[in-house]
Amino acid sequence: MNDLLLLAGAGDGHATDAVPTVLLALALVVVGAKLAGELVGRLGQPAVLGELLVGIALGNVGLVGGPDTSGLASNETLTVLAELGAVLLLFHVGLESTPKEMMAVGGRAMSVAVAGVATPMLLGFGVGELLRPRESWMLHAFLGAMLAATSVGITARVLKDADALRTRFARIILGAAVIDDVLGLLVLAVVSGIIRAAATGVALSAGVLILAKAFLFLVGALVIGSLLSPRVFRGALALRSRGVVLALSLGLCFVLSYLALRAGLAPIVGAFAAGLVLEEVHFEGHVKRGEPPLHDSLGPLIGLLVPVFFVRMGMLVDLRSFASLSVLAFAALLTLAAIAGKLACAFATPKGVSGLTVGLGMMPRGEVGLIFAGIGARLVLNGQPVVDSGTYAAAVFMVVATTMATPPLLLWSIRKR
Amino acid sequence: MNDLLLLAGAGDGHATDAVPTVLLALALVVVGAKLAGELVGRLGQPAVLGELLVGIALGNVGLVGGPDTSGLASNETLTVLAELGAVLLLFHVGLESTPKEMMAVGGRAMSVAVAGVATPMLLGFGVGELLRPRESWMLHAFLGAMLAATSVGITARVLKDADALRTRFARIILGAAVIDDVLGLLVLAVVSGIIRAAATGVALSAGVLILAKAFLFLVGALVIGSLLSPRVFRGALALRSRGVVLALSLGLCFVLSYLALRAGLAPIVGAFAAGLVLEEVHFEGHVKRGEPPLHDSLGPLIGLLVPVFFVRMGMLVDLRSFASLSVLAFAALLTLAAIAGKLACAFATPKGVSGLTVGLGMMPRGEVGLIFAGIGARLVLNGQPVVDSGTYAAAVFMVVATTMATPPLLLWSIRKR
Repeated sequence: MNDLLLLAGAGDGHATDAVPTVLLALALVVVGAKLAGELVGRLGQPAVLGELLVGIALGNVGLVGGPDTSGLASNETLTVLAELGAVLLLFHVGLESTPKEMMAVGGRAMSVAVAGVATPMLLGFGVGELLRPRESWMLHAFLGAMLAATSVGITARVLKDADALRTRFARIILGAAVIDDVLGLLVLAVVSGIIRAAATGVALSAGVLILAKAFLFLVGALVIGSLLSPRVFRGALALRSRGVVLALSLGLCFVLSYLALRAGLAPIVGAFAAGLVLEEVHFEGHVKRGEPPLHDSLGPLIGLLVPVFFVRMGMLVDLRSFASLSVLAFAALLTLAAIAGKLACAFATPKGVSGLTVGLGMMPRGEVGLIFAGIGARLVLNGQPVVDSGTYAAAVFMVVATTMATPPLLLWSIRKR
Repeated sequence: MNDLLLLAGAGDGHATDAVPTVLLALALVVVGAKLAGELVGRLGQPAVLGELLVGIALGNVGLVGGPDTSGLASNETLTVLAELGAVLLLFHVGLESTPKEMMAVGGRAMSVAVAGVATPMLLGFGVGELLRPRESWMLHAFLGAMLAATSVGITARVLKDADALRTRFARIILGAAVIDDVLGLLVLAVVSGIIRAAATGVALSAGVLILAKAFLFLVGALVIGSLLSPRVFRGALALRSRGVVLALSLGLCFVLSYLALRAGLAPIVGAFAAGLVLEEVHFEGHVKRGEPPLHDSLGPLIGLLVPVFFVRMGMLVDLRSFASLSVLAFAALLTLAAIAGKLACAFATPKGVSGLTVGLGMMPRGEVGLIFAGIGARLVLNGQPVVDSGTYAAAVFMVVATTMATPPLLLWSIRKR
């Protein structure tokens, strides 16, 4: 009866008010996600689309007279559980490849990533010049930056569900998404640094340092991880406890996710790196002794936590922000720029790999776009926020449109091959 | 890069400061718990003891010059993850029995529970009369109430690890622990009601209502759950998605845990009820189609989350509170009363079942005792808190001693048979 009593007055009531909320939310998420996934699956659509729709419904049920659920998406525990879901998903995705296989597509992934950051920036800048001609060029540059960064969770999920993770185009997309994460961070730092410097006279923050930290993390994680991992698991054969493989693998995954965050990257980049350095062959000895293979034990964890990530992403959509025509026009143009910008990746794709598939895979902006917009809403230039409420709503529309359109289009383009 | 950017200034920084903390804490918990479990396992001790020790070490590392980790145990997300761990553990434990099997030991479980609540209350009252003769009898009664409630998590874990869940004594212990939860709540409500009424003149809160709600929940969950569960899973055979069994089972588990909380009980009581009503036979059709049995898919979830519960329980121990001799004397007497009080359950145990095993199984107080003490620290009688800092420290000692002593003693008594 711990929590009831805590609610009744002992300890820090704050901490445990979350228990009933999270229990109910998790029940709704796991069952709702499964039913919605089944429904859209029968329409030939990927399950993740159903999860996004459940999230939109849950987050906006207040609009049709239901209870007010707008605070649910910002619940601390659900936010962390969603992030853990994304971390485990990318860890699982990383397991399907090795560092060597990723290096083999490294050059191609780099050109795809650069094309996929530069073109949306230019197009976003253009949309700003066109629709807000009287505003500063710095504001237009921020609009471009908002379109730059890919959120790879959706794509990873579609590739996984379509059983396409071991293909060459999947590796190019995933490699490009990691580089994209570094570039997007750099672009944001530079653009907001310029705006802050213009507004306050403070010097531009050092983009080089950011890049160096991110680079150091990636190389360090892959090199040290690849060297240590087989030794650690060989040593762990001395342990008699059950569940050693899962415990050590999750430990590595969480530590690298943490270090990625500290290096200025997304935790999912660290999780992906952890997945890359681990190979099933490292735990062959354990599996022979009766431990389940890592792939199998990750299944239930992913089944519980990954839907939390996608349902929460849907909950972040506030349908009311689309109620104005001028916002919708701005939103439509921004979305076109966002889509065209990433489809430009197609021209950087090598022969024999569908450029369309790679471009579609880079398309979703997910939360990253929203977070950029949120930072812009706090930046002030000439006494005005860089991202005003209309621009914010347009950014939300762009994020929703690119995110919702990716699963069906990407699945269609994979199946077409 | 979501969270980094949130940290950098967008959105509610509060929500996502938790991500790095939780990632690092989870890495420490899963790896530390596994290594400590291995170590104590080689000494013939149950793994859960190792997890408690890891928690004590993590929570008190500041005493030997390490970083200050005292706030970690009250981190909201870790608190909820720990609670989810306890919920999944008791769900898993409940799966091993059916409502019918529990009913068969119902009468016995009831006498064990009543003996296990009444005797510690009397003994605690006696310790109060002996050591604090000048204080009010109400304070002594509160001391007794503090010794009443069992925390069944530890016992469930030891029974599970010893593969003893399907024995008759395990069912008596588990049934008694559920009844104990209801009785403990009632005792606390009555005693603190009397104290509040004495202090403020407000009427005694209605213990009958509390009892009725708890009773209604238990009967409702078991009867409605047993009727619905086979139908729902038969209907779910129409779904083609993978992972349906896990999603629906977790949904039921979380909903009943939530309803238990709302009925004034511990969430783990609801999870246990959910486990009771589900039978592997309900999903035979799904398993034949290639779904993993529920037992297997719960394994990794339990492997990740259950150690969080026990490590966090260890973290709640502040070793500094044991630094005074008079506190230690009070603590020793209180602990003796707590142990003797629950061993009295032995006399209510039927023939053919080891009374010692049942008594030891009811012994751990876990968090529940701490929460009672926390409520007492906020209750005021004659201008003094009912539980002063010395009494609180003694209560902490009692909880730690009964909790740490249970795993080795219970395992020894099970193996002796």
